Amino acid sequence: MRGSLLMNRRGLQRFRQLAVTATGSAKIKILLFCCIAFTLLALPGWASKFMGWSNLSAPDDRLQAPGKGYAIVMNTWKRYDLLKQSIAHYASCSELDSIHIVWSEPDPPSESLVAHLNHILQSKSRGPRQVELKFDINKEDSLNNRFKEIKDLKTDAVFSIDDDVIFPCSSVEFAFHVWQSAPDNMVGFVPRAHWLEQSILKLCRSLIIMQHDNNKYYSYGGWWSVWWTGTYSMVLSKAAFFHKKYLRLYTNEMPASLKDYITKNRNCEDIAMSFLVANATDAPPVWVKGKIFEIGSTGISSLGGHKDRRSQCINRFVAEFGRMPLVSTTVKAVDSRSSWFW
Amino acid sequence: MRGSLLMNRRGLQRFRQLAVTATGSAKIKILLFCCIAFTLLALPGWASKFMGWSNLSAPDDRLQAPGKGYAIVMNTWKRYDLLKQSIAHYASCSELDSIHIVWSEPDPPSESLVAHLNHILQSKSRGPRQVELKFDINKEDSLNNRFKEIKDLKTDAVFSIDDDVIFPCSSVEFAFHVWQSAPDNMVGFVPRAHWLEQSILKLCRSLIIMQHDNNKYYSYGGWWSVWWTGTYSMVLSKAAFFHKKYLRLYTNEMPASLKDYITKNRNCEDIAMSFLVANATDAPPVWVKGKIFEIGSTGISSLGGHKDRRSQCINRFVAEFGRMPLVSTTVKAVDSRSSWFW
Repeated sequence: MRGSLLMNRRGLQRFRQLAVTATGSAKIKILLFCCIAFTLLALPGWASKFMGWSNLSAPDDRLQAPGKGYAIVMNTWKRYDLLKQSIAHYASCSELDSIHIVWSEPDPPSESLVAHLNHILQSKSRGPRQVELKFDINKEDSLNNRFKEIKDLKTDAVFSIDDDVIFPCSSVEFAFHVWQSAPDNMVGFVPRAHWLEQSILKLCRSLIIMQHDNNKYYSYGGWWSVWWTGTYSMVLSKAAFFHKKYLRLYTNEMPASLKDYITKNRNCEDIAMSFLVANATDAPPVWVKGKIFEIGSTGISSLGGHKDRRSQCINRFVAEFGRMPLVSTTVKAVDSRSSWFW
Repeated sequence: MRGSLLMNRRGLQRFRQLAVTATGSAKIKILLFCCIAFTLLALPGWASKFMGWSNLSAPDDRLQAPGKGYAIVMNTWKRYDLLKQSIAHYASCSELDSIHIVWSEPDPPSESLVAHLNHILQSKSRGPRQVELKFDINKEDSLNNRFKEIKDLKTDAVFSIDDDVIFPCSSVEFAFHVWQSAPDNMVGFVPRAHWLEQSILKLCRSLIIMQHDNNKYYSYGGWWSVWWTGTYSMVLSKAAFFHKKYLRLYTNEMPASLKDYITKNRNCEDIAMSFLVANATDAPPVWVKGKIFEIGSTGISSLGGHKDRRSQCINRFVAEFGRMPLVSTTVKAVDSRSSWFW
């Protein structure tokens, strides 16, 4: 990995192996940092030639992966203060093209709310063009609404987000750049896992609900199990990028029985989207390390029996898909600028 | 990111924000670890229900992203001991389907060498099927040989590797799983960068060599500049995964003048492949954190003027492509199992 440096030094085999095997170790990084600092101080001419500081700048396309930006699709429900707070935050994020608010309330948004949100966008928009705001009004109150196809979406990238979580713009843009390298996959901040349960009790239960997957019973793994094992197989759509084509697939090709199940149980649309994408790609999603600030105080995951209900969803979906499409992984995308010291 | 946990606890807003903002901090991880340890000790019943340790196992597809494995394409040149050492190592890596040795020496490989390598594969192969070994014999000695199209390649994934670098099988398999999430991109262990030079001298030089890219002059950034800035735009083909379609593109669609330049200068075929892939994807490559052991003692990067020659290649290729296709990024893929403590 350090070929150009290491191959300059004969007889430093041991140091070379140390240096390359200690990736992740603060010690060796600090040691190397000290070497560089000393070099820069002692030999500025050579250092500037070597590092090119004197006459180099970042390339013009640095951190500007091509693409048309991304659209935020935000799910909300009668929490206007949270909505205003979220829009006010994301409006200032660069590369944001438009915001689509999934509206499933009986009454349409009030004129004052629409005016207020547009005023926020106008005041925070960067450059000549204002970020576009659209309300996707739905008559039926269903969690499937958040994945309805958006016909006039200008960008390929969709950032699906709940109205009660805030990510710094830097984290959102970083995740967007990760997605640009893996545009067929989900790229998100909230990893979750599925586990194969082995107990007799669970096997009996799996027999009762007639699974097609060799009577295996899967259990939902929350944040703790991801944190503990480092393994995940889903990223939740409460904060994830995916290609807009999956909105079309979800709307037109997801089995109606599965969507009815989601509407009835008011849960698991995010797991369904994870199944849909994994079924299409046969690959795992990508978990991006990022800061998150929860501005809401409650959620369905705070209700009792949440894990059991999520497990039931997974097994129901396995039956619908005829297989378990989720693929587990341990990959985490981090920003090397924030980690190059270890 | 920790929704299911965080939303369970009312009135812990401060701790919640601490917990989620301190990703990367050992302190908070150790604190959380202690909480879990205590919980597991004090409430084994609840803990086992919560964590599911008592009756859960990894899903059967855990860490088994679908795919037909990968083929190693190894470039070598009269270093038979290194070749034997490398093959002996990689032969034991799981998911490896075949090894293709790019042979550009005047004489074909000796029968004893072929027999020895086949014996190694036979003795180290896992399962019923032996890893296939093939020599791609080339009459001309050219660095372009390493990217010649391989007609009978069974896998989509190619792991391009030099004969003098060794990566642990765990690192290779991890990179393979990252590639499965970004199959159109290069995924590798050796990041390099390009920088836009601003000095008058460089601008004059760029005028002299008649670039088509607004007379910009680009400079090659070695490992130190990547380490220092955390930014890169290439991963070198001395240790990288890419889709086999890029071998076809390189062989059939790379300008002959560019390939002649590479043959003549005995350098920069890896930069050319980075240009080819970036030109096709408009996205950056993916750098995977991994251990590397250099078993060779010399290389072209140890020769004087290496950086200048690489910079000349970049500017020549920009002229050939008519633009700078490389996209810079700071994304690093790490194994969360080795980093979940910070």
